[in-house]
Amino acid sequence: MSRFWNSNTRNITPYVPGEQPGDKTLIKLNTNENPYPPSPLALERIRNISLPDLRLYPNSEGKIVKKAISDYYGIAEDQVFVGNGSDEVLGLLFKAFFDETAKVAFPDITYSFYPVYGDLFKIPYMKIPLKEDFTIDFGDYPRGVKAIVFANPNAPTGLYIPVEKIEELLKDRPDTLIVVDEAYIDFGGESCVPFILKYDNLIVVQTLSKSRALAGLRIGFAMGSAPLMEGLVRVKDSFNSYPLDTIAQVAAEAAFQDKAYFDETRGKIIKTREWAKEQLKDMGAEVTDSRSNFLFVKIPGMAGSVALEQLRKRGILVRNFKNQRISDWLRITVGTDADMAKVAEEITLIRNLSRE
Amino acid sequence: MSRFWNSNTRNITPYVPGEQPGDKTLIKLNTNENPYPPSPLALERIRNISLPDLRLYPNSEGKIVKKAISDYYGIAEDQVFVGNGSDEVLGLLFKAFFDETAKVAFPDITYSFYPVYGDLFKIPYMKIPLKEDFTIDFGDYPRGVKAIVFANPNAPTGLYIPVEKIEELLKDRPDTLIVVDEAYIDFGGESCVPFILKYDNLIVVQTLSKSRALAGLRIGFAMGSAPLMEGLVRVKDSFNSYPLDTIAQVAAEAAFQDKAYFDETRGKIIKTREWAKEQLKDMGAEVTDSRSNFLFVKIPGMAGSVALEQLRKRGILVRNFKNQRISDWLRITVGTDADMAKVAEEITLIRNLSRE
Repeated sequence: MSRFWNSNTRNITPYVPGEQPGDKTLIKLNTNENPYPPSPLALERIRNISLPDLRLYPNSEGKIVKKAISDYYGIAEDQVFVGNGSDEVLGLLFKAFFDETAKVAFPDITYSFYPVYGDLFKIPYMKIPLKEDFTIDFGDYPRGVKAIVFANPNAPTGLYIPVEKIEELLKDRPDTLIVVDEAYIDFGGESCVPFILKYDNLIVVQTLSKSRALAGLRIGFAMGSAPLMEGLVRVKDSFNSYPLDTIAQVAAEAAFQDKAYFDETRGKIIKTREWAKEQLKDMGAEVTDSRSNFLFVKIPGMAGSVALEQLRKRGILVRNFKNQRISDWLRITVGTDADMAKVAEEITLIRNLSRE
Repeated sequence: MSRFWNSNTRNITPYVPGEQPGDKTLIKLNTNENPYPPSPLALERIRNISLPDLRLYPNSEGKIVKKAISDYYGIAEDQVFVGNGSDEVLGLLFKAFFDETAKVAFPDITYSFYPVYGDLFKIPYMKIPLKEDFTIDFGDYPRGVKAIVFANPNAPTGLYIPVEKIEELLKDRPDTLIVVDEAYIDFGGESCVPFILKYDNLIVVQTLSKSRALAGLRIGFAMGSAPLMEGLVRVKDSFNSYPLDTIAQVAAEAAFQDKAYFDETRGKIIKTREWAKEQLKDMGAEVTDSRSNFLFVKIPGMAGSVALEQLRKRGILVRNFKNQRISDWLRITVGTDADMAKVAEEITLIRNLSRE
């Protein structure tokens, strides 16, 4: 510690991202990456970039990305905000709309970065427990909060909330900002994006790191009413004018234009997920009805940390969480069919071992 | 404005970056970009990246970049912190070390992003006037401030402070954090980096956007004692775990390894700058002794905004500032010899016009 750290820097507990091991022999199912490469159109466009032009600053607002997203969703360009991954977008959102004067609410089990933003920017927050079965009940959220933030599908449970329920919430709480983190929406859920045209209390956040396989290039975005997006721009331009680099912008535009590849690969992931779900259930594991690109799995009679270690020894990297309620669960990214067959096989072996 | 903006979002005045026009016929001398392309080694490494691997997250700490910088400067890897451009690094620095309890001081004429960070994070700051000749006198800075932040060479004046003066300051103010923004140091100045081994109250910030011609890929970095860098990591990991993408990391590493190309191109820029300086002086313009990759120029008898407009009409983009003390000055990036010959020619024409 340095004596120059301010009190906040001393007190925060930073988010811990999943491990990125250099070892390529490991089956990496710990950070919800896409098992398939990015769109061939995106890769072709990257190859055609005039590299000497990298001497120039990128477009500061990510204009071509905003245009591609607005075309894809049929919304206006000023209803889109792009940033350096959805983590940065969420961080800027917390800074733009919340402060020490108003409480933000989110589930006790959800993306663990939300409380970190709260602590970083000294925003009071409350964690509302999910029901026993990990479902969310918006009736549990007090009316006084300034905002409700949740992921749909939720992480790491994978559970999906039908958009009708979210529309009810938007109508019922017109003075509460509703932030829907749709990082995993493309794997079988329906997006809330159309609601931004009807409700000015909604922000939808998405990423190109999962369904569009561009985690390596750092692109996330928010959608909402133009004034809400303008608030994000104000904060972004007070922090870092150019968060998206030139190559990321070109790739992101193409990824949205190549709808055929997107549909093909997400379809494959959904199919693999459903198959793997059945396999794991058949061997007695508890598995939630995930609509995301990961499975949330409990192996009966085995602590989560033990299962994680056993799988790691067998060359499979998955994720486990410290939160008491879910410490016996594993989050396993949906890989290829071969990856998931290996997962099922190794879990069977581990279970037999633990019974000996 | 949205009713969901918090009071800070309502009140801040964001930084306004220089224009990035699509029009390639303009001679673009408004954002201090390098007129030469990035290192050929960097471009070759980019071409050799396995693009399908962009589906994976990048290394979250920019490990290969830290290693290359530590090799270049002969410092330890934990004395380096990398981020998404020096703007992000400076923003994280303000958030990590300053807060509402302590004042930060910087010159009245310097990089105009410093007060923006202050406003964003509600950090009290004071602007200390430069002397009449735009030089800095550290004696003018009150002893009570928590930190002194300045650019060396300063922007947009280009004036350079010898490192001996900075060492005196470091010794004289052991309890004040001294932040030296060396965005332009490679164009003829001497870096303070060696002092980080002796003084724990120093942070040096640099960028790959100017002397290493990688503005399009967004890489900046800080150097200082390991505990200071750890403070930056804590705040970064509470905001955005992966600010540098995979391609940027590969390019940045190569740019530091290709010392020959770096020395060749910065040498050319320095030569062009000195030649252009003399040209402009010969035609009666006031020109500071810039040690950066821009010239700070006053055309006698002509308002800065008028000169800027006249040059723009003639296809040359430069920058002018609203700050009263320097509103009659232009900041002109040092381009190629041909660019600067054109600048000199057009300024001569404009001057003659204004005399008619």
